[in-house]
Amino acid sequence: MFFNLIPKEFNFFDLFEKQVDYAVKAAVCFKELTLKGSVDQDAIDKIGNIEHQGDEAAHEIIDQLNKTFITPFDREDIHALAKELDDIIDMINTIVSRMRVYKITSVNKNLIAFAATIEDSVRAVACVVKALRNTKNSKSISESCVEINRLENVGDSMRDNVLAELFETEKDPIAVIKWKEIYQDSETVLDICEDVAHVVSSIMVKQA
Amino acid sequence: MFFNLIPKEFNFFDLFEKQVDYAVKAAVCFKELTLKGSVDQDAIDKIGNIEHQGDEAAHEIIDQLNKTFITPFDREDIHALAKELDDIIDMINTIVSRMRVYKITSVNKNLIAFAATIEDSVRAVACVVKALRNTKNSKSISESCVEINRLENVGDSMRDNVLAELFETEKDPIAVIKWKEIYQDSETVLDICEDVAHVVSSIMVKQA
Amino acid sequence: MFFNLIPKEFNFFDLFEKQVDYAVKAAVCFKELTLKGSVDQDAIDKIGNIEHQGDEAAHEIIDQLNKTFITPFDREDIHALAKELDDIIDMINTIVSRMRVYKITSVNKNLIAFAATIEDSVRAVACVVKALRNTKNSKSISESCVEINRLENVGDSMRDNVLAELFETEKDPIAVIKWKEIYQDSETVLDICEDVAHVVSSIMVKQA
Repeated sequence: MFFNLIPKEFNFFDLFEKQVDYAVKAAVCFKELTLKGSVDQDAIDKIGNIEHQGDEAAHEIIDQLNKTFITPFDREDIHALAKELDDIIDMINTIVSRMRVYKITSVNKNLIAFAATIEDSVRAVACVVKALRNTKNSKSISESCVEINRLENVGDSMRDNVLAELFETEKDPIAVIKWKEIYQDSETVLDICEDVAHVVSSIMVKQA
Repeated sequence: MFFNLIPKEFNFFDLFEKQVDYAVKAAVCFKELTLKGSVDQDAIDKIGNIEHQGDEAAHEIIDQLNKTFITPFDREDIHALAKELDDIIDMINTIVSRMRVYKITSVNKNLIAFAATIEDSVRAVACVVKALRNTKNSKSISESCVEINRLENVGDSMRDNVLAELFETEKDPIAVIKWKEIYQDSETVLDICEDVAHVVSSIMVKQA
Repeated sequence: MFFNLIPKEFNFFDLFEKQVDYAVKAAVCFKELTLKGSVDQDAIDKIGNIEHQGDEAAHEIIDQLNKTFITPFDREDIHALAKELDDIIDMINTIVSRMRVYKITSVNKNLIAFAATIEDSVRAVACVVKALRNTKNSKSISESCVEINRLENVGDSMRDNVLAELFETEKDPIAVIKWKEIYQDSETVLDICEDVAHVVSSIMVKQA
């Protein structure tokens, strides 16, 4: 009877690794799209597909959480982690889908810089999530969390600078509306990565 | 003494039914307003009034939750459900109030379509919430949840299409700003309905 | 051993007082900036600095929460309170930083009115948070909560009125984009203050 409480076939760490791998895939796909300099249907479909798979991975975690009595760390932290990782993928998908809607076909250097920073941050998030498996990884986890926080600050400055440039140089108000949203959403991805770092820091402190 | 823990006069299911009925009223009122084709002070007052009553219903649930020791399902799920239902009503009220502020007096076919989809989704939310009373309803609950998710996807496409049309055809940037917000807020109502479906799915899994 | 559960040197009330004092400082600084009629680098640096210190105060609370077994009120309420107080300071900092980015150098009467209302509301929030120390303060707490809710309603009307005025009188779409965001963010500060009042009301009901 007791063994039903911790189903053997089920491992939160595996599920989180799967989910965070989709986040990395989405970030890489977004960076490739910006480097290519244009948004095409293939890239849109690819990210849309990743978003769909990431969604399923998140649901699997929540379903297992609801069915499992004993969890490796606090239930609300598991819930928050699955939610934040899902939000990362969603937001990247939103940016690309908005570019299609706004018929933005060519990419500028600012978005390339954002996409590179997003990829760095999501990769650091993946390190952190994968390291959760072993409490001995606390040093490397806290180093990655510091890096994620640093990249969020970098993103804040980038957004402020590109918005200042946009409002100063772009005379077409419709273009201002489009790019303002895309830049702000890009920075939001880095905010969500920072939220992941906060959740993981909480988990580490509780286990110390 | 023990009986104080579960006050007889108090029933979460009744309170949630009351609250979700206000959400349906707000959605119906919004659809009628769009079908009438114009925003008048009467409709604004009516929705403002529903929002006020919905607010009170939400507070009643939270107050009872804080006073009650034993609850029919997890406390955080009750809290989340009351919050999401309140957010549905708030967002519908925000859309209508923004139309007044922006002096949008005539309604287009896109908003009519959004309002109809919102009404469908909020009615499905009401089915789900009312079915919670009986664990035997799990099949009809999961069917309604599927429908709510489907309508959220419909809303996503609608928003993408109407935004694409707006940015292509509307040459007045001020009108773009106004309608972009109204369309995005409309889609947000469907997102919140989907959040309700997620909370209810969690409740069902835990009780299975 | 047991005494480790409630570390002597640690007091949630002291930490919350420290954090809410930063929120008041930020609100006062914002009001002074609007009264001065212009945004200069000194004011930006000052608010940025307060935001940084407030951030550290929030982290201290979360860290202590994660390390402490017995807390004066529910863990999720402590978490929510620290988060909301942090959000107040963040949002004030965002408004000022956006004014710099948008090169808004002169302030209008609407923003002066918003800043005064924000200061009133944040001061009421400080009263509420400081009164939490003693359950005998429940009457003054509920009076301040009523005042915070009233100021949120005042802010709603202010935002609706200033947006209506903006869309009617401002013919430059770029200026509309800038001020729309600043006014909406200003109203959001009052929304967050109301969220604090809700958290505190929950704490009071549970302790009654």
